Amino acid sequence: MVQSLGNHLIVEMYDCHSELINDRHSVENAMIEAVRISGAKMVQSVIHQFNPHGISGVIVIEESHFSVHTWPEYGYCALDIFTCGDEIDYYSALQYLKDAFMAKNLSVTEMKRGMLNLPVKLLHKPNTGEIQNEKRMYN
Amino acid sequence: MVQSLGNHLIVEMYDCHSELINDRHSVENAMIEAVRISGAKMVQSVIHQFNPHGISGVIVIEESHFSVHTWPEYGYCALDIFTCGDEIDYYSALQYLKDAFMAKNLSVTEMKRGMLNLPVKLLHKPNTGEIQNEKRMYN
Repeated sequence: MVQSLGNHLIVEMYDCHSELINDRHSVENAMIEAVRISGAKMVQSVIHQFNPHGISGVIVIEESHFSVHTWPEYGYCALDIFTCGDEIDYYSALQYLKDAFMAKNLSVTEMKRGMLNLPVKLLHKPNTGEIQNEKRMYN
Repeated sequence: MVQSLGNHLIVEMYDCHSELINDRHSVENAMIEAVRISGAKMVQSVIHQFNPHGISGVIVIEESHFSVHTWPEYGYCALDIFTCGDEIDYYSALQYLKDAFMAKNLSVTEMKRGMLNLPVKLLHKPNTGEIQNEKRMYN
């Protein structure tokens, strides 16, 4: 049985609202809310603001990650929603982020990651015990 | 002039060394070294270990991000190398990680992100002033 371990939405958002995608709090809040809407479980959020403009935001989730990189000067966001398991509503998360960033145009490429041919139904990442996290800052 | 803001390598690594891709330190050290080899500048590394197996690692760089999700039980890694600017040697980073994880097979999809039609040469993300980082832990 061919099955994929992960689902990856690769999203190009054009003509977004420049101020919204240049505000670290609005970007981080939108990403966190999108994770919540999807039903994924957040592990850690990292937000990085460039000067004079641009945001990089990554949320590590138990089911992989959400990431966004914004170019406010061009109204563009590169969004990735990478999830595993079959219980994550990534399309609702995408719809929410399109509205949050007021994107007028977008394109979506959906990729199946880790296509395996195994005789049994694949389990997504187990989460039955202690979860260890570590964070380091380099600057 | 049509130009892209970012370059995204979407990499499927099969038949990796199960123990190497299930060790948080070996995965994180390999990712950090790959970033260094590429010439990118690391901002923050987040590593998340699942129990009993599996690692999620994301490194936010000034030029976007590197991420890896491993399924040691299947010898599989989903690797993404997303960079901006034309000075990052992402292929050397990819070669290094293939060797580090002892992947016997891989496939690579290369996507140009943020294709824009502008009359001037695009600058990649500026880094001329203060960089602000923030980290939060959710557990």
